[in-house]
Amino acid sequence: MPLKKHFNMKASCNTARAGELATPHGTVATPVFLPVGSQATVRTLTPQDIRDIGFDMVLANTYHLYLRPGIDVIRGLGGLHRFMAWDGALLTDSGGYQVFSLAPFCRIDDDGVRFRSHIDGSEHFLTPGLAVAYQEALGADVIMALDECTAYGDPPEKVREAMHRTHRWAERCLKAQQRPDLALYAIVQGGTFPDLRRESAEYLTSLDFPGYAVGGLSVGEPKEVTWATLEETVPRLPGDKPRYLMGVGAPEDIVAGVARGVDIFDCALPTRVARNGALFTGRGRVNIRRAAYARMDAPLDPACDCSTCRTFSAAYLSHLFRSGELLGLRLATVHNLRFIYNLMKNIREAIIDGTFDSFRKDFLDTYHTTDEETRVAQKKKWLRGREKEGG
Amino acid sequence: MPLKKHFNMKASCNTARAGELATPHGTVATPVFLPVGSQATVRTLTPQDIRDIGFDMVLANTYHLYLRPGIDVIRGLGGLHRFMAWDGALLTDSGGYQVFSLAPFCRIDDDGVRFRSHIDGSEHFLTPGLAVAYQEALGADVIMALDECTAYGDPPEKVREAMHRTHRWAERCLKAQQRPDLALYAIVQGGTFPDLRRESAEYLTSLDFPGYAVGGLSVGEPKEVTWATLEETVPRLPGDKPRYLMGVGAPEDIVAGVARGVDIFDCALPTRVARNGALFTGRGRVNIRRAAYARMDAPLDPACDCSTCRTFSAAYLSHLFRSGELLGLRLATVHNLRFIYNLMKNIREAIIDGTFDSFRKDFLDTYHTTDEETRVAQKKKWLRGREKEGG
Repeated sequence: MPLKKHFNMKASCNTARAGELATPHGTVATPVFLPVGSQATVRTLTPQDIRDIGFDMVLANTYHLYLRPGIDVIRGLGGLHRFMAWDGALLTDSGGYQVFSLAPFCRIDDDGVRFRSHIDGSEHFLTPGLAVAYQEALGADVIMALDECTAYGDPPEKVREAMHRTHRWAERCLKAQQRPDLALYAIVQGGTFPDLRRESAEYLTSLDFPGYAVGGLSVGEPKEVTWATLEETVPRLPGDKPRYLMGVGAPEDIVAGVARGVDIFDCALPTRVARNGALFTGRGRVNIRRAAYARMDAPLDPACDCSTCRTFSAAYLSHLFRSGELLGLRLATVHNLRFIYNLMKNIREAIIDGTFDSFRKDFLDTYHTTDEETRVAQKKKWLRGREKEGG
Repeated sequence: MPLKKHFNMKASCNTARAGELATPHGTVATPVFLPVGSQATVRTLTPQDIRDIGFDMVLANTYHLYLRPGIDVIRGLGGLHRFMAWDGALLTDSGGYQVFSLAPFCRIDDDGVRFRSHIDGSEHFLTPGLAVAYQEALGADVIMALDECTAYGDPPEKVREAMHRTHRWAERCLKAQQRPDLALYAIVQGGTFPDLRRESAEYLTSLDFPGYAVGGLSVGEPKEVTWATLEETVPRLPGDKPRYLMGVGAPEDIVAGVARGVDIFDCALPTRVARNGALFTGRGRVNIRRAAYARMDAPLDPACDCSTCRTFSAAYLSHLFRSGELLGLRLATVHNLRFIYNLMKNIREAIIDGTFDSFRKDFLDTYHTTDEETRVAQKKKWLRGREKEGG
């Protein structure tokens, strides 16, 4: 039984949409970006910090919380909202993506996926029914069906098989759902094959979920492939349901995703690169460790209204990073999240004003992006190294 | 020219004193504990956090700031207050203690001390005049004379020589002082030798500094030696000047120091042990990693009014530490500093009420301290390992 009126459209501008998600923990304006709190914490920040930055909804990872502290522990402590002291909206993923990408061993069949913990090597089994049960115990406002995500470059037969399994699992997740107050989203798969994407979108749409995610993108493929695939997928999704592009969060990609009809984004990138000293500005990403900042008696970005830029000079932030001080990681995280928050706010206002196309052009004209070759290399490096970061 | 009315006594209770430090950046109630911000940041916290916890004064290390980002950089950015965005009172040390304990090489003569940076091995020379000039450039409200600190166990001749050098340097610091708005404190040395301590206290008192520190304690000696030495020293210091016991900050030691007439304390211990998961409670230090906390649906210390205990369960804090999450370090730091803040507030109220002796007895009856053998072993381990922590 899907939630009624979970998503309300407010305005559109060509394919870009502005709307609202109604959740048991408040209304969330879309397009929205969800900061990632893998282990029930957006790294370095308190829930109050997240609210102060402006966010009303965050994401947590079921895989991480299942392994540590354990679903039963969080259930016993009153659920995930209470556990992490966050009274805003929450989305949890199914755990599937982390099982496939983080677990040192995993074997999949139609029943589910058997895997070993990346923490202690213990063996576990995840099924569509358990993924729903775990997420219902955590009690996030939006929960995700278990899917099988394939890698970029996998052969079409493998991708087709994973897609069909994803469809069967989506049906099992629907049947397993006990809590109609939580919105269960399906995940479209089909790799980068247009016919599979269309088939997946149409099949899952027939099952009438309250929301739809596009999975299996942003997994190392070139950008033009991401957008071509998205363009095949989104038009086959119902217009009155929210669309969630998983794992996308670079500023230029959010703008590109919104332009193609996406309402929800999540990504660890803004917070992860912040901890590496890479900070967003209107002209692109800059690294605070650059010599130019060491004596700069002005905020890193004078146009920025985040508490970091309103309080500290670039020189101080530079000093914190050069000295390995933990406060630097926190101040940089606040800055990058506020940048993304403002970006989403400006995008939404532009859609409502009917000026999104010119906003998009202006943004991309001034925001210098990492060149494609460097980006793909960085992404590959991250995909290899992410186990260390746990997310 | 020492600052006029830098210290005002408000009340005393036997040898314990309650007073106020008047500084260019506000009045500070004593007895006071100074959180340590070695590198111009109290690790993990913003200046606003420090204010919210209740503190009006913090300490920064001249040695660290001299090496990185450099005194000229901070001077160019408007001084240390502006650099670290802290508008409360500040105390800087002379740099001497860190040179002796952190630098991989140091050679001392009457002119000053030649040393190598622990960061890049570069060679530097610190003199009494430079120590004052650097601190005046940083612009803290209280600055310290350069002294020579000896180790516990050093022979009396070495300690005597270091003490006499400390006295000559104190005079040179007085002469070098250019800014009468900053209160320059002298540091009593003399190791654990009662006659030397008396001589040092009386000599430095004759020079009429606005404040006096007791240095060379809490450097690995047994506690009873610390207190016996302090009892020889404090009565020889002028009653109308503040007394600062450097490097002392365990709760039970603060109480013991106040009982012997100390007004100012600083120590990295409360924040350092917080980052190791050791949290203060009224019954003593506990470790948040203990299994008992993993499912505890209540604050770590239900009696605590810190923002950590008012917001999060012990189970959540335990989860953050077990998961290696940076927020755990921050929440634990807030807790321990608020514990110390409340301790100082309660101590002060008890002195004003004339009930400090019973307060002291009650506190020590319920606060379980680390046994002496373990404490000395931990201190030695820390003295060996502190280079990594940077201070």
